[in-house]
Amino acid sequence: MSATDGLRVIGGSWSKVDGPAKTTGETRYADDLFLPRMLHAKILRSHLPHARIIDLDVSRARSLPGVHAVITGADLPVKFGIMPSSQDEEALCLDKVRYVGDPVAAVAAVDEETAERACEAIDVRYEPLRAIMSIEDAIAEPEARVQEYGDGPPLNVHKNVALEFGDLAKGFAEADHVREDVFFFQGNTHLPMEQHSAVAQLEAGGRVTLWTASQTPHYVHRALSKVLGLPMARIRVIAAPVGGGFGGKSDPFSHEICAAKLALVTGRPVKITLTREEVFYAHRGRHPVLMWIRTGVRRDGRITACHFKTFLDGGAYGSYGIASTYYTGALQTVTYRIPAYKFEGARLWTNKPPCGPKRGHGTPQPRFGIEIQMDKLAEDLGLDPATIRLVNATEPFTKTVNHLRITSNGLRECIARVVAASGFADKHGRLPAGRGVGLAISTYLSGAGLPIYWNDMPHSEVQIRVDRGGGVIVYCGAIDIGQGSDSVLAGIVAEVLGLDPHEISLVTADTDLTPIDLGSYSSRVTFMAGNAALQAAQKMRDLLAAAVAEKLEVEPDDVRAEHHCFYADDRPEQNVSFPEAAALAEAMFGTLTTVGAYRPPRLAGPYKGSGVGPSPAYSFSAAVVQARVDQATGDVAVERVWIAHDIGRAINETLTIGQIEGSVYMALGEALMEEQVFRKGLHKVPSMLEYKSPTFLEMPPVETILIATDDPEGPFGAKEAGQGPLLPVIPALANAVHDAVGVRIDEIPISPDKVLAALDQKRKGAAGRVGPRGVPPFPFRDPIRVDPPAGWDTPWRQGLAVAGGSQRRRRTLHAGTTLSDVRPRHARETAPEDR
Amino acid sequence: MSATDGLRVIGGSWSKVDGPAKTTGETRYADDLFLPRMLHAKILRSHLPHARIIDLDVSRARSLPGVHAVITGADLPVKFGIMPSSQDEEALCLDKVRYVGDPVAAVAAVDEETAERACEAIDVRYEPLRAIMSIEDAIAEPEARVQEYGDGPPLNVHKNVALEFGDLAKGFAEADHVREDVFFFQGNTHLPMEQHSAVAQLEAGGRVTLWTASQTPHYVHRALSKVLGLPMARIRVIAAPVGGGFGGKSDPFSHEICAAKLALVTGRPVKITLTREEVFYAHRGRHPVLMWIRTGVRRDGRITACHFKTFLDGGAYGSYGIASTYYTGALQTVTYRIPAYKFEGARLWTNKPPCGPKRGHGTPQPRFGIEIQMDKLAEDLGLDPATIRLVNATEPFTKTVNHLRITSNGLRECIARVVAASGFADKHGRLPAGRGVGLAISTYLSGAGLPIYWNDMPHSEVQIRVDRGGGVIVYCGAIDIGQGSDSVLAGIVAEVLGLDPHEISLVTADTDLTPIDLGSYSSRVTFMAGNAALQAAQKMRDLLAAAVAEKLEVEPDDVRAEHHCFYADDRPEQNVSFPEAAALAEAMFGTLTTVGAYRPPRLAGPYKGSGVGPSPAYSFSAAVVQARVDQATGDVAVERVWIAHDIGRAINETLTIGQIEGSVYMALGEALMEEQVFRKGLHKVPSMLEYKSPTFLEMPPVETILIATDDPEGPFGAKEAGQGPLLPVIPALANAVHDAVGVRIDEIPISPDKVLAALDQKRKGAAGRVGPRGVPPFPFRDPIRVDPPAGWDTPWRQGLAVAGGSQRRRRTLHAGTTLSDVRPRHARETAPEDR
Repeated sequence: MSATDGLRVIGGSWSKVDGPAKTTGETRYADDLFLPRMLHAKILRSHLPHARIIDLDVSRARSLPGVHAVITGADLPVKFGIMPSSQDEEALCLDKVRYVGDPVAAVAAVDEETAERACEAIDVRYEPLRAIMSIEDAIAEPEARVQEYGDGPPLNVHKNVALEFGDLAKGFAEADHVREDVFFFQGNTHLPMEQHSAVAQLEAGGRVTLWTASQTPHYVHRALSKVLGLPMARIRVIAAPVGGGFGGKSDPFSHEICAAKLALVTGRPVKITLTREEVFYAHRGRHPVLMWIRTGVRRDGRITACHFKTFLDGGAYGSYGIASTYYTGALQTVTYRIPAYKFEGARLWTNKPPCGPKRGHGTPQPRFGIEIQMDKLAEDLGLDPATIRLVNATEPFTKTVNHLRITSNGLRECIARVVAASGFADKHGRLPAGRGVGLAISTYLSGAGLPIYWNDMPHSEVQIRVDRGGGVIVYCGAIDIGQGSDSVLAGIVAEVLGLDPHEISLVTADTDLTPIDLGSYSSRVTFMAGNAALQAAQKMRDLLAAAVAEKLEVEPDDVRAEHHCFYADDRPEQNVSFPEAAALAEAMFGTLTTVGAYRPPRLAGPYKGSGVGPSPAYSFSAAVVQARVDQATGDVAVERVWIAHDIGRAINETLTIGQIEGSVYMALGEALMEEQVFRKGLHKVPSMLEYKSPTFLEMPPVETILIATDDPEGPFGAKEAGQGPLLPVIPALANAVHDAVGVRIDEIPISPDKVLAALDQKRKGAAGRVGPRGVPPFPFRDPIRVDPPAGWDTPWRQGLAVAGGSQRRRRTLHAGTTLSDVRPRHARETAPEDR
Repeated sequence: MSATDGLRVIGGSWSKVDGPAKTTGETRYADDLFLPRMLHAKILRSHLPHARIIDLDVSRARSLPGVHAVITGADLPVKFGIMPSSQDEEALCLDKVRYVGDPVAAVAAVDEETAERACEAIDVRYEPLRAIMSIEDAIAEPEARVQEYGDGPPLNVHKNVALEFGDLAKGFAEADHVREDVFFFQGNTHLPMEQHSAVAQLEAGGRVTLWTASQTPHYVHRALSKVLGLPMARIRVIAAPVGGGFGGKSDPFSHEICAAKLALVTGRPVKITLTREEVFYAHRGRHPVLMWIRTGVRRDGRITACHFKTFLDGGAYGSYGIASTYYTGALQTVTYRIPAYKFEGARLWTNKPPCGPKRGHGTPQPRFGIEIQMDKLAEDLGLDPATIRLVNATEPFTKTVNHLRITSNGLRECIARVVAASGFADKHGRLPAGRGVGLAISTYLSGAGLPIYWNDMPHSEVQIRVDRGGGVIVYCGAIDIGQGSDSVLAGIVAEVLGLDPHEISLVTADTDLTPIDLGSYSSRVTFMAGNAALQAAQKMRDLLAAAVAEKLEVEPDDVRAEHHCFYADDRPEQNVSFPEAAALAEAMFGTLTTVGAYRPPRLAGPYKGSGVGPSPAYSFSAAVVQARVDQATGDVAVERVWIAHDIGRAINETLTIGQIEGSVYMALGEALMEEQVFRKGLHKVPSMLEYKSPTFLEMPPVETILIATDDPEGPFGAKEAGQGPLLPVIPALANAVHDAVGVRIDEIPISPDKVLAALDQKRKGAAGRVGPRGVPPFPFRDPIRVDPPAGWDTPWRQGLAVAGGSQRRRRTLHAGTTLSDVRPRHARETAPEDR
């Protein structure tokens, strides 16, 4: 980044705007809300993984003192779900329960204990059904077991995808070397500190308000409308500050609908806060994925073809699963130039909690596979792990064989910088036995190219109002889930208006008060809401500058906004304070309200399923992990992580590094210990005591290197930071383990028992590998065959964008209160647009 | 009104949108707010009407357990006040107290009782000073006593005004008959059910939020910024729903500033709720006004000249007093064509609670005088009371001698209708002894022509957002003080968008969330915020219509919004639902946010002081009161009131009638019993037990006649309703008493003792009059002499506006998200503006 490009705020490290409220305890999370006359609700959940409900009698529960309402599936018979094609959930099960934890009835009572006792007094008679508890069982089972719908045959398949780009046969024919590998990525959970919680209130006028710990208030709004049968205009959803989401608060949930329904039934506010155990059932955790990868390479390491199969253990319901399935196949081509690529993916129904998005959504699993396989290919070819990646690395401003458009791309610089910083070349294969280094790379979306609903609409909208006293209010539907989106929005607006981020007042995540933002998922908020905020702020600056220009008798283009005032470029001493500028502009234009909106460009390729994968911009990462393996215990200790991340531009450097470090730590947890496993239909570890997750003490130093590529699509050039950096860490660790002790753990978590087993094999003269042995036979569909985009591997624009170019974008004069609103005190000869 | 002009909502009587919340108790007034860790504050007030503070020791109070802070004038040394030229109030007195109730110190403690005890433990040593307790004393006093500033000589004068329009001497020379009368209008108070209350909270980020029962959150915002020394952007003022204001919550108050300061000092939320007794001191009640009126008429009743003197007992501080003073002279000319008019007014400083605005602000007092004098003139000339008024009544679309611009004017119809409905002609002078009828007329503003601050700015702004689900959110600074402004705003927007008022979500009266509205005073909200809402709604309708037109392949002008959908005029069956239209428009335009703003036309005349009086439109009223006087007890019982009011157009008929009936009842209270009186410096009746005010049982039937004149400036033709109807009722009652028993009570309240005294005089052969005998000699300034506007009495436009014309105003395409924002999916050949 060339100096700071005249930026005062962007790229700095101002403290989080919500920091004071959070550190003083002022922030009120959903469970901190206490409304007068509020009832507390509990949900009775299935204790069986699969059963028919034969009888459900709530009369005993209803008659308990202190119980205000008991509702069952019959009260909420409309199905819902996040994806339009997977509307398969019932807020309370009607006929069947499909996993341990499936909600069956809900009780509102004067306190939680009474509600709990009432749940115990509900008489449910179940007919137990055979449960499907694995990918293999789901594929083998000849009868529809979990859901009655799907993409079969086979019958227990939710989604069956097959896509072929370019000529696969030709690609493999051109290969000097081909190898096949199988990997397994175990499921795990988000484990945010805050449990899910929702409070619903029926207003006297008949509207319902729901406060909820949600990453996606807009989707909750839609689901409530559908299930309750109320127009969206009669429902208000407020996303309370979220104490961690990581994807686990991205679905509309049963407890949100039950809280609203119970509020409607009782006329009193109702709170439902899930217990930690319930979160382990409701969470929509990371899909377990079984992978088979066949890749052909030339002698120099260049990939000629890749065939990628994934099998997702989806659990009992759809959630985001269709998207998750496509994601497991979409982004391999964004890091590696693959001229022929075939993807086959299947999501299976099992009698386990439904899986959904977790940080990296659908991509850490295939990235785990492909990055280990690249290491193996390098070894096969006698290449350095960095070299094989550089040989295949994609270029900026190109397209991929599967029709994804890459803009800025700092992948090569990421690899170079992380290799240099870690001393990878000197360490790889050369550290003392038991210690090793591993390298991996990755990419991630800066928001999805398509929304889940309403393709024509903006994905993010921002409205800015300048108050008569000079206050700046930013209205945006984005919800800060801890990632710092409030601070980013404030920073962008402050930069443009010449203010300090802490001077910006934010109104966020309230379907009544704020224009839409689709949600805090898919690493979309900085990019999309940021672009909308930038546009709205630029329009506001233009209004203020026009008014100041008139007073100073200069051209509006010569007016700068800086240091809480406006002045002409050449006369900083003649400045107009921000509140004074606001007053001048309000006198000239009336209400000072501007709007900005962002809708990504239409990038979907010419095939069904092409909507998952395209993003307006991709981040890139490379990571080196240095690890020490205790060959006696199998313990793996991570000594240090170097991670380079092409962020485009950091809006706030500290926040960006925080996102990257958080990703690294979460990755290490998944790599080493976290797993969501089941025994006899039951979750083995549904508590924070039993579910192993790393603590602060187990976390190594992380050296973060920010690569600035100033993306032309991002606000001030910014791209994704909160998810992508997780991806390379897991395979880099696996590769480091191999470098340290010469065994391959092709399955996470890399737990001591697996390391010991591999070492044991190795000692016995075998290859020293733990991992799946193969994949089951599966009738994938005939693939959709798609030609690569014309000229896909020729850059359509040269090199990196000029750093700092992005914020000098064309002044947008259309929306909101605009310059054409001017009713000048003095006659104007020319319209502002003509100048 | 010609049928309903195609209007579905406007003119109807939909229930108040805040009705459900108010009737269920859901509405939370300021005193209903309880914040965690909230402290309660009390204010120590002076018990002397006038004294120097010799010593103030708060150490005992500070040391009391449970006391968190004690502040004094030294903590808040910056003066404030509502009018820029009368910044004379200290939140806590520094050197001197000027009335019983003047605030001296404030205490924040764990509860009200502890705060109260701490106030008692504050040691104040006063040096008592001589108090001025009457107009006469203030004029006679040779030394400055109350305030050190003003418009003297004499020294105890706040404001001294003298204006002469036209040739007064010539006017009186042309008169066939001249009479002089003196009247006195006693002070009284607003007596809303809700006492003043404010809650302040310091946010962790350093901003201060104040919830307050205020009619003018914007002015409170300004005063807080000034006194606390914080930028306005660091202060948020939220007007909590107001439980009655009537003008008494229109000033920034000491307790609001003290609550905010105590929150800053303690870091904890602080509530101050005034006791009822405190409200009697703090209220800014109706000015006592002494009047002298000399009017010359021709034999046929035509006025040739009028000389009007007023003396206002202002109390100890400025408040709105400068405006009040001008108002006592401004509007007589709006009902009566007066070719030569001289006004002299003086506001005096006294050691009583400051007076300010109350319903009718400054105009009920002169209206009382002139309407009784008109009755006397009619009697002198042998004319009927209706005839003398009709002879002099102003015409629509004329100007007055003092440069006020009249638009629609239904005064003649008001007189005719009320005379006909009451049978006035048959009753006046003809009812049995002890019963009589009286007639009076009046006029009032639809908002002031000038704001108090920032002349160039809009007075009202509205922002409308349509949510992706079809929800309509209206943001406006207007505060509903019970008059129904929320319902009016919702109704206007609903009309334009084809919805029901209860479907509109309102966000009001919050300096952070809403664009500005200057406040709920001066009968300005329906007119000004209504105009802003109409503009914003029309822009929104245009956006939605443009999108629907594209879908239906018709011209946008042919698209109607009705019954929750949009359709082409000739094809109602092919309709697009409102949510669907919103989706189409959002896809086309992005964020659906529009803005509207209203600034009244510049109507001030060419003289100093001309800013008080001009309004974009005037309402007109006529009232007949029928009364029975018990000649033994002096009791006056009102049998019936007929009131006709030129409302322009009723936005909501029931609400309008409610405002008119409320005005009538408040007028009868002032006419018959209410008075704010003092003895030995002390308020005689500072409690609801002692201050006599009418109850429901004493209120007569009221027959309201709405006159529609469809004002060209008002939203849908609407004008004022909430204050004007109070004015004629008081003199009409006085005139009815005269008609009943032949005595003149030229001073309100018309209490039994005064009636008995007048009857006694009459029995003794005297004239039978109670009232002031004269006015003190007073050195009014040399008058500013102003020529009448050229052609002032010739209508500049003919007749009444065509009913229903106003809502078909030009489509405004400028502000907010506009049609020029369109990024059409299909190319457009012409810009929408060109069509």
